[in-house]
Amino acid sequence: MGEDSVRIFEVGPRDGLQNESVILDVDRKVEMIERLVEMGVRDIEFGSFVHPKWIPQMADTEEVARRVTRREGVRYWGLVPNLVGLERALEANTTHIATFMSASETHNQHNVNRTVDESLDCLKTAYETANAEDVTIRAYVSTAFGCPYEGDVPFDRVLAIAETLLAQGADMIALGDTIGAGTPHQVRDGARRAIEAFGVDRVAMHLHDTQGMGLANALAAYQAGIRIFDTSVGATGGCPYAPGAAGNIATEEMIHMFDGMGVDSGIDRDRVLEVAGWVDRETDIDLPSKLYQYTSQLEAAEDQTEETRATA
Amino acid sequence: MGEDSVRIFEVGPRDGLQNESVILDVDRKVEMIERLVEMGVRDIEFGSFVHPKWIPQMADTEEVARRVTRREGVRYWGLVPNLVGLERALEANTTHIATFMSASETHNQHNVNRTVDESLDCLKTAYETANAEDVTIRAYVSTAFGCPYEGDVPFDRVLAIAETLLAQGADMIALGDTIGAGTPHQVRDGARRAIEAFGVDRVAMHLHDTQGMGLANALAAYQAGIRIFDTSVGATGGCPYAPGAAGNIATEEMIHMFDGMGVDSGIDRDRVLEVAGWVDRETDIDLPSKLYQYTSQLEAAEDQTEETRATA
Repeated sequence: MGEDSVRIFEVGPRDGLQNESVILDVDRKVEMIERLVEMGVRDIEFGSFVHPKWIPQMADTEEVARRVTRREGVRYWGLVPNLVGLERALEANTTHIATFMSASETHNQHNVNRTVDESLDCLKTAYETANAEDVTIRAYVSTAFGCPYEGDVPFDRVLAIAETLLAQGADMIALGDTIGAGTPHQVRDGARRAIEAFGVDRVAMHLHDTQGMGLANALAAYQAGIRIFDTSVGATGGCPYAPGAAGNIATEEMIHMFDGMGVDSGIDRDRVLEVAGWVDRETDIDLPSKLYQYTSQLEAAEDQTEETRATA
Repeated sequence: MGEDSVRIFEVGPRDGLQNESVILDVDRKVEMIERLVEMGVRDIEFGSFVHPKWIPQMADTEEVARRVTRREGVRYWGLVPNLVGLERALEANTTHIATFMSASETHNQHNVNRTVDESLDCLKTAYETANAEDVTIRAYVSTAFGCPYEGDVPFDRVLAIAETLLAQGADMIALGDTIGAGTPHQVRDGARRAIEAFGVDRVAMHLHDTQGMGLANALAAYQAGIRIFDTSVGATGGCPYAPGAAGNIATEEMIHMFDGMGVDSGIDRDRVLEVAGWVDRETDIDLPSKLYQYTSQLEAAEDQTEETRATA
């Protein structure tokens, strides 16, 4: 990655779909993933090995993993909660896993029913197995810029957890702004500290647009040096704490912003919009992406004009 | 205004409402304006004196202007298209007017049925009368960062038009990103050039979030030195070129961002959210503001929990 290029980590098939009430069948999930890869994404989170009791949307992740055609140069990531999930992931030939835990005690307790220390221990065991199997590990640290239960989260705590996870065998960190609580200077300062501590290639920003700050925070993170960004096509995702609220940053909006700044993502914006259009047509998900809404409404208006002309 | 403070120019009652299919009655418009002023806004665009044939949503602007209680220290702005509109504004005791024209020929032609030069001439006449009446003039230059018909708009052209308008008697310029076409570096560069040419107190940013870039562009403009920002409570507005697409930047999201950055706007975020809640309840407008959606869904979820507890 050069100074003026970024890497987009597409989380739509996992973080996007797991928070939608609509459940896609395996055929559609596989097609969505393959379309995203065709459009140029080189990192894709294809699903989650969390127990289906908790996330029914992801119950068929093994089958998805087995059926997706793997392309050279693309990393296919599966979300894994613990050793049991890791074993399911390994059976499905997963070579790249993502793990998650929260920086705030209350959120971690609510989310995985463990204290932060218990989560660190639990992941240590999983990492040992993963490392032995040569699996690459990405570690999400959630609530990095704010917690729905505790409010502010000291960033020292975020860094300490990240450091422990890397020491235990994780290859990289993704700072998760779970409820989109961050604001630009906060994200900028956190990004700088994380880059200084772990190096630019080991820190990703997993921002959410829940409170409308998504892209402004991404800009601030970019200015601080971050070059890996998590996004979701069409901005699927929603917020588990406030049904109806926004979720991930739209892949197409992130790329549109970087295109305008002369920053290369290796992905064609218009092809992302095509995939968003496919998701829109094939599912009942309302895509919150403003860029998608704008371009698709514009096309519809133009089609109507054509039609009017044709019948006039 | 200090280094770390901004001035919010509320356009909801005009730019917001004029693009909604819902038409508010005079009572509600007056109440909306008074609530916005109570929450701390010091600049408010209360309506438009454009002919009702073009903008039926604004047909009763005279009555609104007459009925709104004027508060000391607040500037009440009326949008004026030409000399005829100015005369209506003057009759309604308007002391602050905003005029508009586009930097791109095609948009100006479509919007006001004049060439750019004809618009400059038309506004010259209106400005002479306004200046004689001691009316303060804000001049919008629309399509400053892109045109729905022509695409790119050379910023030299934007600056030249702004310069002419100031020379003809305008007091300040608002750079209008009519279809939210700008991206952060573009907006930053334009902002720097405009500030250098006209001074920071004479340049406002009127950004739209049509393509999802709104707040990222606002951050870039702030970093370039801009201290006056146009917003609309709840992000009402929409886009006349793509029905269903987003409009203005939400006042509450702008203030939320600046609060987090330690930048004073003189306005309390939670009170803006209350006004957004009032608009939500009193009208059929779907408010696109993500912060409003998040906080109101959160409150609804909490109320439901309370209810469940009460009935358990």
